[in-house]
Amino acid sequence: MTAASPHAYFPVSARIGADLKAQIAQGVYPPGAALPSTRALAAELGVSRTTVTAAYDQLVAEGYLETRPGARTRVAAGLQPAPAPVAGGRATAHHLSAYGRRLLAEPLMPEPLMPEPLLPGSLLPEPVMTEPAPGPAIDFRYGDLSGNDFPVLAWRRALTAVLLRRPARLGYADPRGLPELRAALQAYLWRARGLRCGLDQIVVVNGSQQGIDLCARLLVDPGDRVVMEDPGYGAARRAFAAAGAAILPVPVDAEGLQTGRLAAVGPARLAYVTPSHQFPLGGVLPVARRQALLAWAEACGATIVEDDYDGEYRFDARPVEALMSLDRTGRVIYAGTVSKTLSPQLRLGYLVVPPALSDVVTEAKRLADRQAPGLEQAALAGLLTGGGYERHLRQARRRHADRRAALLAALAESFGGTVRVEGAAAGLHLVAWFDHRPAAAETGMAAAARAAGIGVYPVGPLYHDPAARPDRAGLLLGFAGSEPGTIREGIRRLAVALAGERRAGI
Amino acid sequence: MTAASPHAYFPVSARIGADLKAQIAQGVYPPGAALPSTRALAAELGVSRTTVTAAYDQLVAEGYLETRPGARTRVAAGLQPAPAPVAGGRATAHHLSAYGRRLLAEPLMPEPLMPEPLLPGSLLPEPVMTEPAPGPAIDFRYGDLSGNDFPVLAWRRALTAVLLRRPARLGYADPRGLPELRAALQAYLWRARGLRCGLDQIVVVNGSQQGIDLCARLLVDPGDRVVMEDPGYGAARRAFAAAGAAILPVPVDAEGLQTGRLAAVGPARLAYVTPSHQFPLGGVLPVARRQALLAWAEACGATIVEDDYDGEYRFDARPVEALMSLDRTGRVIYAGTVSKTLSPQLRLGYLVVPPALSDVVTEAKRLADRQAPGLEQAALAGLLTGGGYERHLRQARRRHADRRAALLAALAESFGGTVRVEGAAAGLHLVAWFDHRPAAAETGMAAAARAAGIGVYPVGPLYHDPAARPDRAGLLLGFAGSEPGTIREGIRRLAVALAGERRAGI
Repeated sequence: MTAASPHAYFPVSARIGADLKAQIAQGVYPPGAALPSTRALAAELGVSRTTVTAAYDQLVAEGYLETRPGARTRVAAGLQPAPAPVAGGRATAHHLSAYGRRLLAEPLMPEPLMPEPLLPGSLLPEPVMTEPAPGPAIDFRYGDLSGNDFPVLAWRRALTAVLLRRPARLGYADPRGLPELRAALQAYLWRARGLRCGLDQIVVVNGSQQGIDLCARLLVDPGDRVVMEDPGYGAARRAFAAAGAAILPVPVDAEGLQTGRLAAVGPARLAYVTPSHQFPLGGVLPVARRQALLAWAEACGATIVEDDYDGEYRFDARPVEALMSLDRTGRVIYAGTVSKTLSPQLRLGYLVVPPALSDVVTEAKRLADRQAPGLEQAALAGLLTGGGYERHLRQARRRHADRRAALLAALAESFGGTVRVEGAAAGLHLVAWFDHRPAAAETGMAAAARAAGIGVYPVGPLYHDPAARPDRAGLLLGFAGSEPGTIREGIRRLAVALAGERRAGI
Repeated sequence: MTAASPHAYFPVSARIGADLKAQIAQGVYPPGAALPSTRALAAELGVSRTTVTAAYDQLVAEGYLETRPGARTRVAAGLQPAPAPVAGGRATAHHLSAYGRRLLAEPLMPEPLMPEPLLPGSLLPEPVMTEPAPGPAIDFRYGDLSGNDFPVLAWRRALTAVLLRRPARLGYADPRGLPELRAALQAYLWRARGLRCGLDQIVVVNGSQQGIDLCARLLVDPGDRVVMEDPGYGAARRAFAAAGAAILPVPVDAEGLQTGRLAAVGPARLAYVTPSHQFPLGGVLPVARRQALLAWAEACGATIVEDDYDGEYRFDARPVEALMSLDRTGRVIYAGTVSKTLSPQLRLGYLVVPPALSDVVTEAKRLADRQAPGLEQAALAGLLTGGGYERHLRQARRRHADRRAALLAALAESFGGTVRVEGAAAGLHLVAWFDHRPAAAETGMAAAARAAGIGVYPVGPLYHDPAARPDRAGLLLGFAGSEPGTIREGIRRLAVALAGERRAGI
């Protein structure tokens, strides 16, 4: 009962119990041995007898002690000396599943997709952990949104409205998601993405990543062939690779997936595509290629996963309708998300699945985590049906258009003809190609930028087949996370950093 | 452009675009054909030329039309007649993975675990979908919590505090969860569950179901042997079975898993246990059995998944410490949740994994859905560090103790010696055994109760090996969802219903 006991802030009876356990573990009281009477121990410790009795009762409840009416309390006969309670203190090899081994065998995700800390660690009075290294001062990381854009008041109002409804009971609900939300999404998808579907086809998921992962689990066995855009989205590639897929990279050009190459690739189980705004190169897949892709899928029995990760943002025209809206044969699974419209931190997305897959996706979602969080689902439904979502979206479109314009102007001003921009017609990022510099220069360029406090991200790691990529340097620039002034300043500093890096002769 | 067009609430240019698409699909304008000039079409439709130009521009952007300077706008040469946009309209067979096929082959979950609608569908002004059948008037469904208990104000305050911090950027964060929350959980687990662990061992998940599913994916290959309690938790059994596990049912008694039977079962890859309060029979695993289980796991190299789903509730003593606190060799994965302390709708839980598994679990969580929702994580961290969580827990314990007392008293009053209660020392449910009635009577009893508006749930479906179960009827009674008066009334009505059902000679 020393002051340094880790149990120092436990009630006295708990401290007595902890010390008794330690003494039992050390063999002071071997199995079957009688303990001091409660009266004796209370006197020894200078505490009330009630306190000691409580400690004994607790250890009886836990099985350390045994008691019989009229007899002394004893250490349980079958007990082994217990180890000190430090969980997982010794390294032990665990047998991993094939899935787990594939997960560790794959290289980590490329940097643009690596997580960094988001919410400032301001809740705790003192630092209790090592803080991760701070990010660059001006960051063009793709996938980030500016915190300024989040509709704090509308979201808070929506959450409060849901909280105050106070349901009579809290239990598990439909794994596909809240009926109100699915109905709201059904209407939204029709008017905004040209997608007509039944309620039973909609499954609310935790962001599009869960949707992709469910598709990989349900549709891909080890060795199955999966078509992916090259370059393409790393987190999807990793999900399919972890499922054991044989990845078939198909090159993209300025119009997205080169569907003319599908015949040469041959049949596949699945194709993962980003037709609204190819990730990362930004092409918008024309309707003729969409038809070719659907025809290929039907011919070989493939399922198409359409990741519509930022299809809401189109700057020169209305957003192109979803690929799924052209699908008459039930080959396409559509994955949508609010990660680019509200916040990636909300972790809300949705799958629209062909009717034939509705049951199995529902069961997989149930076993994966039962359902998406109820409060947030109801809040999003409120925002959608009340019109707040599209009001916010219109505002976000304007802000992102300003950011995009600032980025394009700054690139032209600082780099002139030495930079060629690709993929800026839609979405929240673009690729800046430095045609006069080799692909190998990318890493040095990003490092020089980083040293100057600017986060830019090489395109290289997003290529599946490094040999197939053009020998020129490309940087991925997301513009949704910063304001126009910061963007302009960031590009100015980037130009200075890259000029210096070049003079250094790398 | 009929009034019945599904695009009736689109802007006029969008309606023109939709009609043009339909005409292209019907072959009115075949691939390569010239369209009317914008001037001509504008005159024909009685709209401005700008409107028609906008429609043409949009279809050019989508790839339906092609345009060259000085030439008439034409239908894209490579275009096929497009189908009408009804997603997934024809049933198509999809090739499912082995996982998907196992998922569909397994029987659906037994009724106590089946989801029912939770939040009333009050967001939408009109009913837009078929409402599911209403639940029983008084429901003893296990897993539900009373909506009265949820700390609405504290949770709202915590959420608001987080929302108003308004981070500069919104992006993806650590897949293991918010550092503040993991630090808060680390401290909580130490003081409340006797569990000391490093921050890197904690991974925040979407409720314990996701934790269990991650364990199944990472540790179980098809054919691997997995020990499960019998009877046991259906959703866990389904997750392991879907991973392809060969389930080894080990019987439980009043003290939980019969560890003495493990030697006969032989080695296994994994054991899933509920030592704090065996689900469903309610036994608290004594420390000697805990030691035996750990020794068995070490001897055969098995990993133990400890599902501490309601370990916070112990009515006759302090909660028993977690099994993992006895684990010195890193064999135990601990799964905790707020589903029984705050709400199953929040979908927040946590794994504590041995250091050797930290990396692979982190990667699996990242690919599964990147991370748990940020707002809710931060709100829970605030509740934990501010003391609100444990204040709420103390209150919840008192309320549940009252409900439990009401249920025990009502059972004694209505059934006397004809009912034997098991597993009431801990947790939020108990089992009422009708020793004088055969197991086969359970279904009829539950149906008779249901007809009287009372939801009770047979124990039978929770047995893996129906032959091994005792031939007596048992009903699972959860008491966390209703208030004491309702519980008493429910048991009175249950007694009447069961007496009537018995007289009917079933």
